[in-house]
Amino acid sequence: MEGLLLVVPISGLLALAVAAYFAYDVLKSDRGTPAMQEVAGAIYTAAVAFIRRQYTTIAMLAVVGMIVIGAVIYVFETAPGVSKEELALKTAFAFIVGAAASMLSGIIGMFVAVKSNLRTAAAAQTSVGDAMRIALRGGAVSGILVVALSLIGVFAIFALYGGFTKPAEAPFTIVGFGFGASFVALFAQLGGGIYTKAADLGADLVGKVEAGIPEDDPRNAAVIADLVGDNVGDCAGRGADLFESTAAENIGAMILGVAIFTVTKNPAWIMFPLVVRGFGLVASMIGIFLVRGNEKRDPMTSLNFGYYITVALSIVGMYFVTNSMLNEKGGAIWFFYAGVIGILTSLAFVFITQYYTAGSWRPVKEIAEATKTGPATTIISGIAVGYETTAASVITICIALFLSHFFGEQWGTATGLPHGGIYGTAVATMGMLMSAAFILAMDTFGPITDNAGGVASMANASHETRERTDRLDAVGNTTKALTKGYAVASAALAAFLLFSAYLDKITDLRKAAGITPSDFHVVDLAKVDVFIGGLLGAMLVYLFSSLAIRAVGRAGSAIIQEVRTQFREHPGIMAGTEKPDYARVVDITTSSALRNMIAPGLLAVCAPVVVGVLLKAEAEAAFLMVGTMAGVILATVLNNGGGAWDNAKKYIEAGMLKDSLGKVLGKGSPEHAAAVVGDTVGDPFKDTAGPSLHVLIKLLSTITLVLAPLFI
Amino acid sequence: MEGLLLVVPISGLLALAVAAYFAYDVLKSDRGTPAMQEVAGAIYTAAVAFIRRQYTTIAMLAVVGMIVIGAVIYVFETAPGVSKEELALKTAFAFIVGAAASMLSGIIGMFVAVKSNLRTAAAAQTSVGDAMRIALRGGAVSGILVVALSLIGVFAIFALYGGFTKPAEAPFTIVGFGFGASFVALFAQLGGGIYTKAADLGADLVGKVEAGIPEDDPRNAAVIADLVGDNVGDCAGRGADLFESTAAENIGAMILGVAIFTVTKNPAWIMFPLVVRGFGLVASMIGIFLVRGNEKRDPMTSLNFGYYITVALSIVGMYFVTNSMLNEKGGAIWFFYAGVIGILTSLAFVFITQYYTAGSWRPVKEIAEATKTGPATTIISGIAVGYETTAASVITICIALFLSHFFGEQWGTATGLPHGGIYGTAVATMGMLMSAAFILAMDTFGPITDNAGGVASMANASHETRERTDRLDAVGNTTKALTKGYAVASAALAAFLLFSAYLDKITDLRKAAGITPSDFHVVDLAKVDVFIGGLLGAMLVYLFSSLAIRAVGRAGSAIIQEVRTQFREHPGIMAGTEKPDYARVVDITTSSALRNMIAPGLLAVCAPVVVGVLLKAEAEAAFLMVGTMAGVILATVLNNGGGAWDNAKKYIEAGMLKDSLGKVLGKGSPEHAAAVVGDTVGDPFKDTAGPSLHVLIKLLSTITLVLAPLFI
Repeated sequence: MEGLLLVVPISGLLALAVAAYFAYDVLKSDRGTPAMQEVAGAIYTAAVAFIRRQYTTIAMLAVVGMIVIGAVIYVFETAPGVSKEELALKTAFAFIVGAAASMLSGIIGMFVAVKSNLRTAAAAQTSVGDAMRIALRGGAVSGILVVALSLIGVFAIFALYGGFTKPAEAPFTIVGFGFGASFVALFAQLGGGIYTKAADLGADLVGKVEAGIPEDDPRNAAVIADLVGDNVGDCAGRGADLFESTAAENIGAMILGVAIFTVTKNPAWIMFPLVVRGFGLVASMIGIFLVRGNEKRDPMTSLNFGYYITVALSIVGMYFVTNSMLNEKGGAIWFFYAGVIGILTSLAFVFITQYYTAGSWRPVKEIAEATKTGPATTIISGIAVGYETTAASVITICIALFLSHFFGEQWGTATGLPHGGIYGTAVATMGMLMSAAFILAMDTFGPITDNAGGVASMANASHETRERTDRLDAVGNTTKALTKGYAVASAALAAFLLFSAYLDKITDLRKAAGITPSDFHVVDLAKVDVFIGGLLGAMLVYLFSSLAIRAVGRAGSAIIQEVRTQFREHPGIMAGTEKPDYARVVDITTSSALRNMIAPGLLAVCAPVVVGVLLKAEAEAAFLMVGTMAGVILATVLNNGGGAWDNAKKYIEAGMLKDSLGKVLGKGSPEHAAAVVGDTVGDPFKDTAGPSLHVLIKLLSTITLVLAPLFI
Repeated sequence: MEGLLLVVPISGLLALAVAAYFAYDVLKSDRGTPAMQEVAGAIYTAAVAFIRRQYTTIAMLAVVGMIVIGAVIYVFETAPGVSKEELALKTAFAFIVGAAASMLSGIIGMFVAVKSNLRTAAAAQTSVGDAMRIALRGGAVSGILVVALSLIGVFAIFALYGGFTKPAEAPFTIVGFGFGASFVALFAQLGGGIYTKAADLGADLVGKVEAGIPEDDPRNAAVIADLVGDNVGDCAGRGADLFESTAAENIGAMILGVAIFTVTKNPAWIMFPLVVRGFGLVASMIGIFLVRGNEKRDPMTSLNFGYYITVALSIVGMYFVTNSMLNEKGGAIWFFYAGVIGILTSLAFVFITQYYTAGSWRPVKEIAEATKTGPATTIISGIAVGYETTAASVITICIALFLSHFFGEQWGTATGLPHGGIYGTAVATMGMLMSAAFILAMDTFGPITDNAGGVASMANASHETRERTDRLDAVGNTTKALTKGYAVASAALAAFLLFSAYLDKITDLRKAAGITPSDFHVVDLAKVDVFIGGLLGAMLVYLFSSLAIRAVGRAGSAIIQEVRTQFREHPGIMAGTEKPDYARVVDITTSSALRNMIAPGLLAVCAPVVVGVLLKAEAEAAFLMVGTMAGVILATVLNNGGGAWDNAKKYIEAGMLKDSLGKVLGKGSPEHAAAVVGDTVGDPFKDTAGPSLHVLIKLLSTITLVLAPLFI
């Protein structure tokens, strides 16, 4: 077992090396024309300025959070054999390390992404294959780093807190790491999500709709802010989201391992999640290496090929690790099955998301048809599609939960050991997370290609160059949608194991406090306070989304006013003789996004505390569980509804919509205008509220785990 | 106690007399000009034709339902001392009586409403006060009949099934009555809701948007269908909704009474819900009698006055009945408090709904401001408002649940008797339902005044007449929104007692089947299958809404095609020299609505059966509970979001929106066009999916209660 454990640091260090190599590979590539460099330079400067201001704010909030957590644990928590001071310090330290690691991975990933867009645009002057390689490797830097840092971080702090000498206690003390990561992710995703969609909304409404100029037109003062937005929202935001997913779910799985360790005294049950993720990281890197684009093939086919490789290698790795580590008393095959369920779930979500958001299937076509009767029916149809998508997603999640739990129970029957069912869901979650680095690389590929298109367009690159970037950009839209589906599904699967960890934790606290009966593994919805907790959890999800969506509207209005003023006061801008003041719009977007992320962020952090303190542990569990269900479902609605509108617009722009006489209804038609309304409505859904909900769900789990002593 | 029980038949018969008097009063009023009579005649014919076809379909479905239920109970249910045949026959008979009573009240109410619109329009030629009296009394016929029929129905079947000799057993056998009512309500609300909004959508999009003719213009072929829609959706649909609310909640409360009866042997605990509702019916009738409109006062003020009277009388009645019936061992005051909580909750929802959907407060103004940047921001802003409304509604429901339960527990402490907490929520629910007849009268007032406006407009009545009907119509919009808030809140409050009834029922079944432990009062979300049940319940709500919304879109498209064809093939219609073929549009709308109500209806009926059979009783309970939470919240979003868009449009039409220079942005402005998009999107939300969700929630409760033997 000790040998296998070495996989963790080795794969982590290997990943850092691969990331460094990819970064080097990208940075040494051709930097294109001076015009391109100028545009990319402006994006770079603005993105760095935003991230600096955003992360300064977040760092201050994190320090406050750390102090509060330390104080709460010092005052309320009691554990046998550990001093209050040690417990408080350890948790607070883990929190700040988790927060710092999350910030670090966001910053580095975004830095490379912003550098990659220029190189991708430059490469697109000659070849799709090269452009694709650069964009994917740029994205992979972020993807690999995020996963490696979360793996190394959890491993290091586990080792530091005596995981190898007292494996049963360490997992609980490192929960703070996951909470720190969630905390940063929440604000990173909210701030970035508000920034990106406010800028997008502002740029589109004033540019495309009012002034009638095309997307990414240099005369639009909001265009740089719009391009910056893709980086701060999709790169930094989603990176932080998946950083905390992998960290929190890993820790949750380790906590469940403690229960079996207590019986078998074999620490492999606790270490398994770390090792299997190390294998997943390696599988993802191989997959990324094997992606090769060329001029003829659809870039999505190339990416899918790499993904299938990753999935296949993950299955092999899962077989090897379950057999090596979990074969005590035999029966490891059941956990292998559970792991495969998790891996296949990620694949299922890739297909579901494609079906609902890609133009070749019924849902997007239905929305495109609805544009013929105007914007109202376009919206109605998109919302109907968004609601409908919950069915396939939820049923898939239910099957995955049921089967992985069932396989775990079969293991229990075969070996006579307890806690198999819940460990089965933990193995499935780990299986799902094995491809996280690949998925995240594909995700970051999206904003890089999007930005490359913007750079090419603003730098007046050749028609062929823009055609190439457009092709990659379309694929990027799909990969961004896939990542969200993946993030939701992993959150849903992980939620169940984090609940169990919470119930274990409360049981421990009750034991320590001498409360009888100490066992606390029932969350009884038939009690009125528990029911109320559940109802409030479901409500929180809506209130939070309302604040996030409204924040985009507010920040967007500020941008619209500014761009309008610039057009009015400087007629030279429209004529093309004067340059708009991009920096002013960037500045307004930055302050507006940061101001507006505070309210939903604080709501998310405070609501679970208030409910738990008032209604206590069992109602808090229902709050967490029903809130998670509602959050998973609403995030699915928002992500897929938004994605479907986006692609209905693209479907029309591609000339695929025809009237009854066969005439193409393309760009500039009333149908296209209606589709633009749908796309605009969908933007804050799919890029602000939806992704922020993923983070909210996991934040609820980590916050309740860490602050559990308050709810006894 | 026997004396008090007489209140039930007396108030019921009194109500029938009052309804007959109101109907006589309305029907003897002036029938207006021949032109008005012609329009009203067309509405009447079409409405009757739709109802006949719809209720024929529903009746056939109900007969199938009856046979299935009888068979299921015959095969699966076992109860000591009762033969299988008797149980199956009793439940099936109760089902069909409930279904028939629901249909009857829908038919009579709609018949009078369709007759009242003409008289209201005629009266509006001379006086607001008279028009208001006729519209309200026309609505009251429906409101009073619905409530009286449900009260008499439950009482009669309770008596018939030996309620006075074996009070502990009868409540369980009459659950079929509630199920029959829910079953009819589901299809009545779905069919009516699809009809009304498809016609509205079709008429608006082709008329106002494409042809540029005003609302209710006789040249629009869809205008009669649109006017018919208000009656079949808002009158017949909502009537069926509240019929089943009052019936199901009454039966649920009686079942909870059985638990206390078992201890005290006092049947008053079972009869209380019937008696207190009798008092509520009388209070509502007095309130309706006291409403007096006049030329100067805002009609809403007059209605509010009557409502406050009803509330005050309800509180007095509650005090009297709790003290007379529930004062065993003292402590009745606690149940009085619980009842007051219920009464005040209905008042709170009246205020919350007004705040979020009336033009004088922040939310509607915010949406109106958002129209300045186009339809996309209008939609985004409305959805943010819809999501936000869940907070106030859910918190109110939680407080009501918590306090009524708390007061019930205090009673338990005071008397040493069990089951007080849950009985407290039952008393609160009954308190809330006391004003049902008044609320429903106000609701039906809405479509009557709406139709009166349509009749006046199409009959070219004088400007003053139309101004008067417009004033009443605006109030009608508010009262319709209030009723939905009331229906959601009562569903949420009642849900908890219906869950408890379900758990009692399962316990009884387990006892009868000799399963140990037989006690079944824990719904443990921490079990994976229970969690899956909950997740599926939340998902059902979205899938059902998706089908309902899509049905409106489908039926609406068919109407649009037809109206376009008529305009194209008969140019005389637009010129005003030729009459459009209203009947054809009515016919298309009718068949389309009926065809499209089947899929969501069957989903609602089948999903709980499938989940219960596959995952068994405890998971089914979670399905029911989380489905109810999700349903209450989504219905709130849809109802209030839709209502806010509607009134944002009215706010702009009233000239209240101004640009930065103070210029009014009224009808015909781009802001108004954006607001119309919002209103159109909101229509299927607030009048099809939202109200259908109320019914779905209660159907879930009654279906699980009746089919419980399947889930053991």
